[in-house]
Amino acid sequence: MTATFSQWMGDIQQRTEAALEHALPAADLAPARLHEAMRYAVLGGGKRVRPLLVHAGGQLTGAAPGRLDRVACAIEMIHAYSLVHDDMPCMDDDVLRRGKPTVHVQYDEATALLVGDALQTQAFLHITEATVSDDPLRQIAMIRQLAQATGSRGMCGGQAIDLASVGQQLTLPELEFMHIHKTGALIRASINLGVQCGHGLDDGQMATLDHVGKVIGLLFQVVDDILDTEADTATLGKTAGKDAANDKPTYVSLLGVARARQLAEELCQDALDRLAPFGDTSQRLAELTRFIIRRQF
Amino acid sequence: MTATFSQWMGDIQQRTEAALEHALPAADLAPARLHEAMRYAVLGGGKRVRPLLVHAGGQLTGAAPGRLDRVACAIEMIHAYSLVHDDMPCMDDDVLRRGKPTVHVQYDEATALLVGDALQTQAFLHITEATVSDDPLRQIAMIRQLAQATGSRGMCGGQAIDLASVGQQLTLPELEFMHIHKTGALIRASINLGVQCGHGLDDGQMATLDHVGKVIGLLFQVVDDILDTEADTATLGKTAGKDAANDKPTYVSLLGVARARQLAEELCQDALDRLAPFGDTSQRLAELTRFIIRRQF
Repeated sequence: MTATFSQWMGDIQQRTEAALEHALPAADLAPARLHEAMRYAVLGGGKRVRPLLVHAGGQLTGAAPGRLDRVACAIEMIHAYSLVHDDMPCMDDDVLRRGKPTVHVQYDEATALLVGDALQTQAFLHITEATVSDDPLRQIAMIRQLAQATGSRGMCGGQAIDLASVGQQLTLPELEFMHIHKTGALIRASINLGVQCGHGLDDGQMATLDHVGKVIGLLFQVVDDILDTEADTATLGKTAGKDAANDKPTYVSLLGVARARQLAEELCQDALDRLAPFGDTSQRLAELTRFIIRRQF
Repeated sequence: MTATFSQWMGDIQQRTEAALEHALPAADLAPARLHEAMRYAVLGGGKRVRPLLVHAGGQLTGAAPGRLDRVACAIEMIHAYSLVHDDMPCMDDDVLRRGKPTVHVQYDEATALLVGDALQTQAFLHITEATVSDDPLRQIAMIRQLAQATGSRGMCGGQAIDLASVGQQLTLPELEFMHIHKTGALIRASINLGVQCGHGLDDGQMATLDHVGKVIGLLFQVVDDILDTEADTATLGKTAGKDAANDKPTYVSLLGVARARQLAEELCQDALDRLAPFGDTSQRLAELTRFIIRRQF
């Protein structure tokens, strides 16, 4: 009997936690304080959305779970590094993340800086320490895609645009451009890299899934903006309402809640329509898309 | 006629500068401010010691110069990222680097944080964008070695130990442990990765060159500590005497200048002795070792 979505999600979250436990240097290994703080930043929290997307992507090509765990850990380390640096005083200056004090509050600023730096490196180390594709050239291409999604033309570039946009009036295309980089690039890479852990697909199918990844990335951000307006800090596990407080443009500030919700519905439907031809192999990714639009945290 | 060492060094520095110009995103590409600041951090300065070591390593195995440029650029980007973050207010809080204002002074702290982050990613992107070894599995191993040298068990771990050692009384073995990580790991990787761009060597030869890399890394640091004590800020292009000012343990503070000089001579001789069996193919690495001990900046 196939597991329900909720069982599947719990299973992936659990195995991701175990894989991350194993993938991070032990807390008693020198330099111990750095390693302890790296583990603090990554373990015991987070929705693990990106690992779920990696595994859902892997279902489309029958990928081995162990390979998906490896890719999922690498991506989650990149995500965690970005949160640690984003929370620092010179950036968003936030004190709460995943219901716990942020790294620079729990430790200190210098440690937070090094934790983010070392987590990024650990991601690239982890994805080179075992086989994630039968074809080594494909594996090199996957590392390249991870770097593209992470760097100045991906996530980090999105952060830079976000920084420059504080207090600015953005147009909807400009806001979309920012989010396609800041959150979208890594979400998109999660699906694409999960897919590539398994058997080959034709170029048309790869392009469709890449588009789906882009749409899910935007969907995730639109929902995030709605939640930032409507949910409270305890439910989110991070400071609520901080976009408005920081005078940052969001989908809600540009469109209002009602139209932002409608946009989310449209994006969700677009993704589901494009996944339909993949039949059963797209089950988890379709369920995950519906989950993202329903989520309350 | 073979070029003199000084001609060779000038040639490598020049081609490295050109390769870095090309390897970094253009300053007018969005996000332009980030890309401009990345270029500011990397271009037009620096002794390019690591690229010189990559090319000298490559001479030992007849490696193609284009491959060596690629590896050299990746390593130099990692080095530049570490300097940008190291100079930030929460770390060494320095205002001068390579004779110019540091990135957080010239731009701002948030930009400096993102510049370091993006330069690290760019290094891993760069080393996956073209072939650096005929064997793709070897290339994956080389990326792994770069990550090992960069991360929490390499350079970044050394930074963490350095941070924890301020105001502490270290023993000579503790100081050596710190430097083997902080500066040593990337210098050692420079030689090892340069070597691997060319034809294969036997395990014994690889082990010898790895040892030479470790010795040159220590030599570099001992000389750096002597220069920090003796040279002035204008000659160094960075703030002189800052280790003493920051109450950081150094070879000079532990051994005194005379014994530190003697240690440098011993390390230099050890490296040269081990390089001798490689004959002409070790010419540049031997010359470079002698240059490092003679250098005034």
